[in-house]
Amino acid sequence: MNTACTVELKRPSGLQPILRPRSVAVIGAGRDPQSMSGRLFRNLLSSFRGPVYPVNPKAPEVAGIRTFASIENIPEPVDLVFIAVPAASVLAVVEQCIQKRVKGLVVISAGFSETGAAGKHLESKLRELVHVAGIPMIGPNCFGVFNTDPAVRLLGTFGTAAPPRGHLGIGSQSGALGVVIPDYLQHWNLGASTFVSIGNKADIGETELLEYWRDDPSTRAILLYLESFRAPQEFRRIASEVSRHKPIVAIKAGRTSAGARAAGSHTAALVGPDRAAEALFLQSGVLRVDTLEELFDVASLLAVQSLPRGNRVAILTNAGGPAILCADVLAARGLMLPELTLGTQTELRRGLRPEASVGNPVDLIGSIEPVEFQRCLGVLMDSDEVDSVIVIFVPRDPAAAADVAKAVRETASVHRKSKTVLAVFMQTTEVPAELADDKTRIPGFQFPEAAAGALARVVNYVHQRRAHKKESIPTFPDINLDACRAIVSDALDSTGTDSRWLELPDVLRLLEAVGLKAPRSKIVSSADAAVAVADEWDAPVVLKIVSSTVLHKTDVGGVVVNVRGADLVRAAFQQVMVSSPGATGVLVQEYIAGGCETLIGASREEPFGHLLAFGCGGIDVEILDDIACRLHPLTDVDAHQMIHGVRTARRLTGFRGQTAADINGLQNVLLRVSSLLTIAPEICELDFNPVKVLAGCGGAFVLDARVRVSHTLSGGAATCSPDLR
Amino acid sequence: MNTACTVELKRPSGLQPILRPRSVAVIGAGRDPQSMSGRLFRNLLSSFRGPVYPVNPKAPEVAGIRTFASIENIPEPVDLVFIAVPAASVLAVVEQCIQKRVKGLVVISAGFSETGAAGKHLESKLRELVHVAGIPMIGPNCFGVFNTDPAVRLLGTFGTAAPPRGHLGIGSQSGALGVVIPDYLQHWNLGASTFVSIGNKADIGETELLEYWRDDPSTRAILLYLESFRAPQEFRRIASEVSRHKPIVAIKAGRTSAGARAAGSHTAALVGPDRAAEALFLQSGVLRVDTLEELFDVASLLAVQSLPRGNRVAILTNAGGPAILCADVLAARGLMLPELTLGTQTELRRGLRPEASVGNPVDLIGSIEPVEFQRCLGVLMDSDEVDSVIVIFVPRDPAAAADVAKAVRETASVHRKSKTVLAVFMQTTEVPAELADDKTRIPGFQFPEAAAGALARVVNYVHQRRAHKKESIPTFPDINLDACRAIVSDALDSTGTDSRWLELPDVLRLLEAVGLKAPRSKIVSSADAAVAVADEWDAPVVLKIVSSTVLHKTDVGGVVVNVRGADLVRAAFQQVMVSSPGATGVLVQEYIAGGCETLIGASREEPFGHLLAFGCGGIDVEILDDIACRLHPLTDVDAHQMIHGVRTARRLTGFRGQTAADINGLQNVLLRVSSLLTIAPEICELDFNPVKVLAGCGGAFVLDARVRVSHTLSGGAATCSPDLR
Repeated sequence: MNTACTVELKRPSGLQPILRPRSVAVIGAGRDPQSMSGRLFRNLLSSFRGPVYPVNPKAPEVAGIRTFASIENIPEPVDLVFIAVPAASVLAVVEQCIQKRVKGLVVISAGFSETGAAGKHLESKLRELVHVAGIPMIGPNCFGVFNTDPAVRLLGTFGTAAPPRGHLGIGSQSGALGVVIPDYLQHWNLGASTFVSIGNKADIGETELLEYWRDDPSTRAILLYLESFRAPQEFRRIASEVSRHKPIVAIKAGRTSAGARAAGSHTAALVGPDRAAEALFLQSGVLRVDTLEELFDVASLLAVQSLPRGNRVAILTNAGGPAILCADVLAARGLMLPELTLGTQTELRRGLRPEASVGNPVDLIGSIEPVEFQRCLGVLMDSDEVDSVIVIFVPRDPAAAADVAKAVRETASVHRKSKTVLAVFMQTTEVPAELADDKTRIPGFQFPEAAAGALARVVNYVHQRRAHKKESIPTFPDINLDACRAIVSDALDSTGTDSRWLELPDVLRLLEAVGLKAPRSKIVSSADAAVAVADEWDAPVVLKIVSSTVLHKTDVGGVVVNVRGADLVRAAFQQVMVSSPGATGVLVQEYIAGGCETLIGASREEPFGHLLAFGCGGIDVEILDDIACRLHPLTDVDAHQMIHGVRTARRLTGFRGQTAADINGLQNVLLRVSSLLTIAPEICELDFNPVKVLAGCGGAFVLDARVRVSHTLSGGAATCSPDLR
Repeated sequence: MNTACTVELKRPSGLQPILRPRSVAVIGAGRDPQSMSGRLFRNLLSSFRGPVYPVNPKAPEVAGIRTFASIENIPEPVDLVFIAVPAASVLAVVEQCIQKRVKGLVVISAGFSETGAAGKHLESKLRELVHVAGIPMIGPNCFGVFNTDPAVRLLGTFGTAAPPRGHLGIGSQSGALGVVIPDYLQHWNLGASTFVSIGNKADIGETELLEYWRDDPSTRAILLYLESFRAPQEFRRIASEVSRHKPIVAIKAGRTSAGARAAGSHTAALVGPDRAAEALFLQSGVLRVDTLEELFDVASLLAVQSLPRGNRVAILTNAGGPAILCADVLAARGLMLPELTLGTQTELRRGLRPEASVGNPVDLIGSIEPVEFQRCLGVLMDSDEVDSVIVIFVPRDPAAAADVAKAVRETASVHRKSKTVLAVFMQTTEVPAELADDKTRIPGFQFPEAAAGALARVVNYVHQRRAHKKESIPTFPDINLDACRAIVSDALDSTGTDSRWLELPDVLRLLEAVGLKAPRSKIVSSADAAVAVADEWDAPVVLKIVSSTVLHKTDVGGVVVNVRGADLVRAAFQQVMVSSPGATGVLVQEYIAGGCETLIGASREEPFGHLLAFGCGGIDVEILDDIACRLHPLTDVDAHQMIHGVRTARRLTGFRGQTAADINGLQNVLLRVSSLLTIAPEICELDFNPVKVLAGCGGAFVLDARVRVSHTLSGGAATCSPDLR
């Protein structure tokens, strides 16, 4: 689907020469230290372990260093070249770099696809140039890269602050975020291994970054700011693998149409619908956050060695109010605040004033004594009753904060392996530096709700990653592959237009070929024929109008259910026929009594591929916008999570003592639909509504189905039925 | 219902002697400047305009001031007394204060109702003492009060920092919040007129604070941190009035059961169910926020003179990514980011570099030129296309931030009346001081999502307050008041137990007395009688089991709908009878075809009074937890908002071209139920389910109703049906 992507994937180490070069040059290095290129050059000069060459034909020296007129004039080999010349000169300069056999490029220059059609054209020429030459490129229109490894020390950005060393790999599609990241890292007491501003992603994108960090021992957790995906299926494959070993946290901007429009005016990247992005993150094991603050709050927790083992939390505080606010957020996000056992309470009680409360929250009532925090935290960490502890300190005496921070860190360092400890210091200045030393780092927060929110995100993420371990994409040997292909190909052959809906008989044959249950069905064109069919089956029937012009058959009176007996069948036939003047016949279908109505759909959402949707109930799906989506192909876990992920799932799982519906049968339908999309990717839209799920092991029946196919693979998104989005 | 409250309401100026005293004394003033009482005394000494007397029989002097052995020894009159002695001595000390005829008390001492039964008893004696004496009291167990008025300068807390002067009135049920408030105010560039830590609220509570601030010209907006309500109906009355003139922002801790338990161990105050609290805030015109950060973010915006007039926002930025994040939050919360007109775009374009984009967001692409921000902000403020402008600045050069802040403030000051301006400076240090001078103050934020979130809260709040203006509680002269009273009284008289469900015939009579529509109904005890009733009506009927032991009749097969003809009625009678062995009869009811099923309920939720609930649909109400709640009595606006406030409201308002249901008829039922609760407050639980709303003007029919009455007024909450919560 993405041929460009295949080429890139031949270079898993594409980032090596960019993030670990032996020598660098800056083409367009400016004399003005305040200019972007001037600052970039000086940053490299003052940081990088190897030689840094300025290229500038207009200035004899930059920052006291003799310049070269062009890259070709540099007598030594050059690994990495930063390009900071006007867009119009970039292609010529890149050609010189290719001649020079450089190993990597970072194109800072703007004026490419983000500016319109001409820029887009220039960018595609640039991409072609580096692809043919096989040189990995970051950018264009980017803020640069950095690597804090002491053996490399590459500060290849035009920022003013040096980023602290640490274990986060950070990738950003926003240059602005690159500007503020050193400040954010400092504030959150974090550090980064490497940072890449991917800009317009003409060559290197988010997937290549993930591959680099997968193999980079300095990187333990990954942060991404994204506005678009270039190759979502590749992202899914690689992120799924990487996230099993290193947590990935992402923020995706442009989730609303207003945001997407803002993104559109900012970068030429395709902003996909947010539902597809949401599904992609879920299926890739990526922890998605909603705000920048949350991104760093969560990172702060992930940078700790021992992640929470479960969802039980204790709060240790010297103030009731903030503890309640904290408890509210924990409970609202599904975490537990268990009442501590009497044994633990007795242990805690020792040495505390009688007014202290020890249930959970453990409230030291205004105490600012480090020893009380130390002792209580120790007791909590020794107990088996909780997995995490949130310490909340209100600095009635600001001087006490440092001592309490030290006490918390020291206590936690002794018990480091078993529990996750967070600390809230209710002050708007920085959290105390005493929370971290060389060995131990307690994530610090300024507000109780932020700590609780970050912990909840991480606990739920850890839980989900565990649950994800055994997933697989099932295959169905009984699916009649040839029949499926034939039905779809024939339909496409028989039409000159770009896309078409399958005829009802073809849809029925397709259901059978995929091994899906459907009620006995027959299309008739007279009341007599309808009566004959019902007679033959000797069962109650449903009559439905067959018409290519009716979207919602029920709304126009085109459906009559549960009819039995010649007279009633005849009357139903008449009623259905008058409902729609353009009717081409009537479908007589065996009536399936009982069960729960669900909906299964799929549509092509480029660049994501097919997005599958599941909903429970009739018109409510639309009223409540209650659907769960996942990208094709579905794993067994995906199908399970879709069914249980809608708010109305209780309708299926057995409500008020009713028998649960056949969820296995339903899951089977979802997975077979996904298989069908693999067999026949020309299906651009599919709408099974309703799919009736019977109780017990009764199976799931597709009562109504519409399938649209198209020659081209990008026609799906615009015309999909609104139900599915 | 709250007699204690009535006594207090005779003193609307109860806070005057506490917040504007002419002289103060501290009983228990400590020698140790680090002790609570020592610091409190020193704070007062260094701030207060009038005399400050230390009372301490054990020390001859405190902070160089000669002490008095008791309050009675002070030769001058004393207005306000702070009490900081051990709990056991408080009553004796208060009696001396009463002798001394002091005008107000602030009891700092802890050890009262927050510590258990003995403390609770002590507190009620304290309350009685001050009530009889008519002396207003803050506390016990509180952090104190302050008033920044230069004519008063009362710093009556044991905090370490002095709060900045400003226009916020702040009330807190958490002392800890009092500790951090000076820091928060400083950080958010805000100031307070007055602060009161209400502690255990034995006398003065949140309602008295609101009354004080209503009349206080220095206070323009009100912030509340609450864990409980002492007199919710009073709060509703007073907050509704105050919020029409001064915005009230509140955070309510203890919204989850875990949080409530945390609150319970912290204070003895009753933590009401969060739904009732939510309803109370909605009906009082109070803007509720979820986190402490949000409380101050919103306060920061409300402290600005001109509130947003509408929901149209422009973003002016020098960085795309943060603008997209900002746009996402705005759009998700219902605000508009209109594309600017060509005229405005042309105007903006002048003097900008060609790569800048001017659609909205207006993106200056990395510019740090104050003049560009100034010019563009001016154009946006002159246009009629937006109501607010969010300026986002990424300080690529930190030195530029101050100049841009100054440019923004100066531009905004010229246009102050017409638009609301917010500024985001993407840095973790304080926002630039240049955002404020004596005349103009631009609310500053560190993250784009925080600015967007606060603006959305305020826009929606302003919109809602406007919509609230004309509401009233309707009366229904046709309700048969005597009949209602008689039915309820007779039921109570005939039972020895504390509460009972009304018998079905009484329920039917009650519906009639209240003027509610119900289908024709008759209770029968034989199949023959059922047939006779159906015959007489000559209409399809419904048969329902009559049994006091069955909660969900449908679940046990105790309901058969839409039966016609003697044989079928007879068969239905048999089926219904076998469904429940304890059946006392069968209700034959006229079948109402079509319509939409809704649910109306009420339960007593002390201390809130009756809480009414509305839901749409059958079992889905429970599955989706989709109900809207308001406190009794309902205004017309309340009833309207309840109906339109459920997610499933579209079922009623006309979906896919169907006729809308009779919403007026439904609203009428809600309002009549509220009237009934006024007439018969002994009703502790009421469950009308389903109420069928017909299309057009067909009315709303109560198909099934259960009503429970009780002698005591506090019996409702524990046994209410789970459907209604």
